[in-house]
Amino acid sequence: MNDRHISSAFDRDLEAVQALIMKMGGLTEAAILDAAKALEERDDDLARKVRENDAQIDDLEERVNEECARVIAIRGPVASDLRTVLSVLKISANLERCGDYAKNMAKRTSVLVQMQPVGGAPRSIRRMAREVELMMKDALDAYIQRDAELAEDVRMRDADVDQMYNALFREFLTHMMEDPRNITACMHLHFIAKNIERMGDHVTSIAEQVVYLVSGKMPTDDRPKGDSTPYIVEEQ
Amino acid sequence: MNDRHISSAFDRDLEAVQALIMKMGGLTEAAILDAAKALEERDDDLARKVRENDAQIDDLEERVNEECARVIAIRGPVASDLRTVLSVLKISANLERCGDYAKNMAKRTSVLVQMQPVGGAPRSIRRMAREVELMMKDALDAYIQRDAELAEDVRMRDADVDQMYNALFREFLTHMMEDPRNITACMHLHFIAKNIERMGDHVTSIAEQVVYLVSGKMPTDDRPKGDSTPYIVEEQ
Repeated sequence: MNDRHISSAFDRDLEAVQALIMKMGGLTEAAILDAAKALEERDDDLARKVRENDAQIDDLEERVNEECARVIAIRGPVASDLRTVLSVLKISANLERCGDYAKNMAKRTSVLVQMQPVGGAPRSIRRMAREVELMMKDALDAYIQRDAELAEDVRMRDADVDQMYNALFREFLTHMMEDPRNITACMHLHFIAKNIERMGDHVTSIAEQVVYLVSGKMPTDDRPKGDSTPYIVEEQ
Repeated sequence: MNDRHISSAFDRDLEAVQALIMKMGGLTEAAILDAAKALEERDDDLARKVRENDAQIDDLEERVNEECARVIAIRGPVASDLRTVLSVLKISANLERCGDYAKNMAKRTSVLVQMQPVGGAPRSIRRMAREVELMMKDALDAYIQRDAELAEDVRMRDADVDQMYNALFREFLTHMMEDPRNITACMHLHFIAKNIERMGDHVTSIAEQVVYLVSGKMPTDDRPKGDSTPYIVEEQ
């Protein structure tokens, strides 16, 4: 009887924390899409909005941290309940980092609007951002539904994001070599692309938490690995 | 009596976890220094060693995660004991990321040794890496000693690392504009510098955990903020 009471109190607490996570997820997804839109449409006002809104995501992470500590202290969860609370902490940290990356994209966008546009890169970057945003939505759905199959699917899709990033990296090298006046803009664009690639890694990490929650095991790293640009040696 | 028993069992557990953290710290510090040495001395064997050793750091993080979950489940810590365990989880995640960055530096070094050297950047990068390694040592000492003053000092020193990074960023732009044949090498060197700047952020985050542990409050963000390159608009 007492056990049952404790268990359902824990479930209510967990639902409250999960609601915060979903709110964080919604704000972070919006930040990613808006940052990419601001870049493509050279919209400095929207970029400013993204920068300003990041504080909300940071605040939510703080609240999640506090709530999780409270739940652990009061409910003393063990086994899979404890795993769940610890995974919530990791997921909110991942979302917070994605919010930071979106903010950084927006900062660079405010500089890029002052420069000559470089090729079609902003459009490709926006496509990449949309892909990551969809992955994030699915990873969070997988979390709420405890759907390991969907989480596994998200993990695998990160390879597409990495491929988009690798293609962009080569495109930037070409633009810079063709015309040194493109160098500064390309450095910023490259950073933006890298930020999105890193968001993909954080989303993958969320998906891995879901697999861990459902199966009790972290997935072994058999997914095709990512950023191959460390190994790019361009013909000179 | 019972309380006392629980408390000292907790302390023993905590010491065991802290020993793992210190071991992680030692390996991560070595990885940073070795990665920077391999870059400056164009030593591909040492770079390979850094890449291979990263698995040890990852394994230790796994062990810290498991141990912390075990301690929470068995000891049911509350208040400052719980804060301590949660901060250990964050610190080990920070160290693990620093290990990843060192590994990424080493990957890029193995490519850079195949290219023409670019100016004195590798020496400046190594100086930056040494600075971050010292900060990491101090942050971990501050953690073990619960020394908020030393932690605060580490936080402030991150501004120096950011300044070194900003100077390098401008240097790379100049090299690339002077001679397009430098572009690929400079992109790799720039990433390496950025990786070290990010390590500085992770070390700062460790220092903030120490301040939080000692004072119960996260430091408000009054330290001079960091990477100003998002705002760099080079004369073209």
